[in-house]
Amino acid sequence: MSGIGEKAGSRAALENELRSRIRGKAKPIGSLGRLEDLALQIGLVTGSLAPNLGLAKILVFAGDHGITAEGVTAYPSVVTREIAKFVLAGTAGINVLAQAAGTTVELIDAGMIEPLPPHDLLIERRVAAGTRNSLQEPAMTPDECTVALEAGRAIAARLNDEGVGIVGYGEIGIGNTSAAALIAHILTGIDLAALVGPGAGAPARGLDHKRKILHDALDRAPIATSDPHGRALEALRQFGGFEIAMMAGAMAASADTGRMVVVDGFISTVAALAAIALNSATRDCCVFAHQSTEPGHKAVLAHLNAEPLLALDMRLGEGTGAALAIPIVRAAELMLREMADLPGEHPV
Amino acid sequence: MSGIGEKAGSRAALENELRSRIRGKAKPIGSLGRLEDLALQIGLVTGSLAPNLGLAKILVFAGDHGITAEGVTAYPSVVTREIAKFVLAGTAGINVLAQAAGTTVELIDAGMIEPLPPHDLLIERRVAAGTRNSLQEPAMTPDECTVALEAGRAIAARLNDEGVGIVGYGEIGIGNTSAAALIAHILTGIDLAALVGPGAGAPARGLDHKRKILHDALDRAPIATSDPHGRALEALRQFGGFEIAMMAGAMAASADTGRMVVVDGFISTVAALAAIALNSATRDCCVFAHQSTEPGHKAVLAHLNAEPLLALDMRLGEGTGAALAIPIVRAAELMLREMADLPGEHPV
Repeated sequence: MSGIGEKAGSRAALENELRSRIRGKAKPIGSLGRLEDLALQIGLVTGSLAPNLGLAKILVFAGDHGITAEGVTAYPSVVTREIAKFVLAGTAGINVLAQAAGTTVELIDAGMIEPLPPHDLLIERRVAAGTRNSLQEPAMTPDECTVALEAGRAIAARLNDEGVGIVGYGEIGIGNTSAAALIAHILTGIDLAALVGPGAGAPARGLDHKRKILHDALDRAPIATSDPHGRALEALRQFGGFEIAMMAGAMAASADTGRMVVVDGFISTVAALAAIALNSATRDCCVFAHQSTEPGHKAVLAHLNAEPLLALDMRLGEGTGAALAIPIVRAAELMLREMADLPGEHPV
Repeated sequence: MSGIGEKAGSRAALENELRSRIRGKAKPIGSLGRLEDLALQIGLVTGSLAPNLGLAKILVFAGDHGITAEGVTAYPSVVTREIAKFVLAGTAGINVLAQAAGTTVELIDAGMIEPLPPHDLLIERRVAAGTRNSLQEPAMTPDECTVALEAGRAIAARLNDEGVGIVGYGEIGIGNTSAAALIAHILTGIDLAALVGPGAGAPARGLDHKRKILHDALDRAPIATSDPHGRALEALRQFGGFEIAMMAGAMAASADTGRMVVVDGFISTVAALAAIALNSATRDCCVFAHQSTEPGHKAVLAHLNAEPLLALDMRLGEGTGAALAIPIVRAAELMLREMADLPGEHPV
């Protein structure tokens, strides 16, 4: 990362210096509330008292899910690609919200059923033409899971080269609330029923049917491994999807390079869960953008002890919540770096 | 306003058309939550199915308060001007938050004790060198109140000429939580004690002392008028300040020209209360940005039946909450104007 400012010594010393600096800004102590917590987090992630996060970008990971064959969704898989086309045309929800936040969008095809023609905003990282039906068999092979995670890491490395320090993570994938509910159950132990919601709309064969299918999928693939890393890999492999695994790989790699990971809704939060299991340092980089109305989201946020910045009753996905949170992250960065300091000592 | 798009007929017809258009956007119905409500509000305020609000700007109104002589504040009045200088230098909290939101700031001297030298970002509208001490006498003369309101209306007219359609309202004024609590009590009937909080910090002579002084100020000036317009004028005149009256004048004039009024914290919300009393149409234009930690703010928002967009435990003033909300207002505008429409009819 370019632009990392004054470096501090040990983490404890850095934290003390950051608290003192935030306390000494030209304002009543504590009067910027949660922005001050966010400024401290940014300082710790970047290792800087005057951080410069550089550019912001929203990555939208798209993938299809074999489990849609089981009537667990309101829309057919073809809709994944229809939404992806709106993203490339610049007219999807995420495009207009990103524009309002002063940021840009890229679409990653992690494995939709049908590819899209080349486009400036499209990163082609297709693992396969959608995952397999996880009610019947593992959603991906071990090799496919590795490829998806590695592609995520490569995307993170590219962001580093581009000077992008604030990354919003969003997704498109008909069926991915099913995958996310299963992964979240395995990684948190939260009752599966509490993690199953309507997703993009009432499932074709009803919510009880969706719950039954997901219970049966779990029964097919009991996961014996007890270490978090192994459980995360196995959960991703058994239940997919490519977009969730690729997001998790990119998020986990972000922790090594001082970038802020702005997590969108239920799916992105489950990808963050997996990323934290793969690399526990990821947790420190995560900003949880909003609380969506998908019921499992609240439960997973609580498990992560995460307090989202926004609560606007949204449930669109695509990174739309992350987009609205990016100016708040930027505000905290600028407060720490550019707001006036009052003279004198400011002991914590 | 330039850019107002397709005009619709009656308000009811417009509302139906707006609801249908929002419903027909390329997303699951209702999945943008409160952004959809905001888009409807913007459509109604602008009278357009494809609104173009134009530029956004944050106005910071500064004024001093004679009641600071009574030990009701943590800081002396000279701090108003110190903060105003940070605003002009571009290093106050509001400057960095406005930058994060992609918007700009102007400072209005509505009546600080000591003037500032001319500056590009300074609008000089000084009514007097601070208000009088409202414990002893009316904070302003009837003429001063009229001048302050008229100056606000002139500022609103200027915004119109500049093509500014999103206006964030903030303030600086040591002592203005005292004025705001008194005005709010008179206009809402909420118990005064519930409206008195620490403001920028613990009052010099304690919170109980602040409550007692404000009760005594109320006793000095019982307001007999029962009509809302008259009560608002009398409350502003008796208790000040110039910055609150000028904000109220500008907000009330905004309602006539289809601009969004983005209301910041406790003081700005009380200015909005007064503006609504002066021109009830103002309520339709108001977006309540955030809920601050100043206790009276929650009570006044509830009285207005207003649900703020953000709750980040902030209490800085200056328009800082409004700044963070502006990208959300912009997102709603862009959603309505630029997000893809799905083909077909979308009955409400």
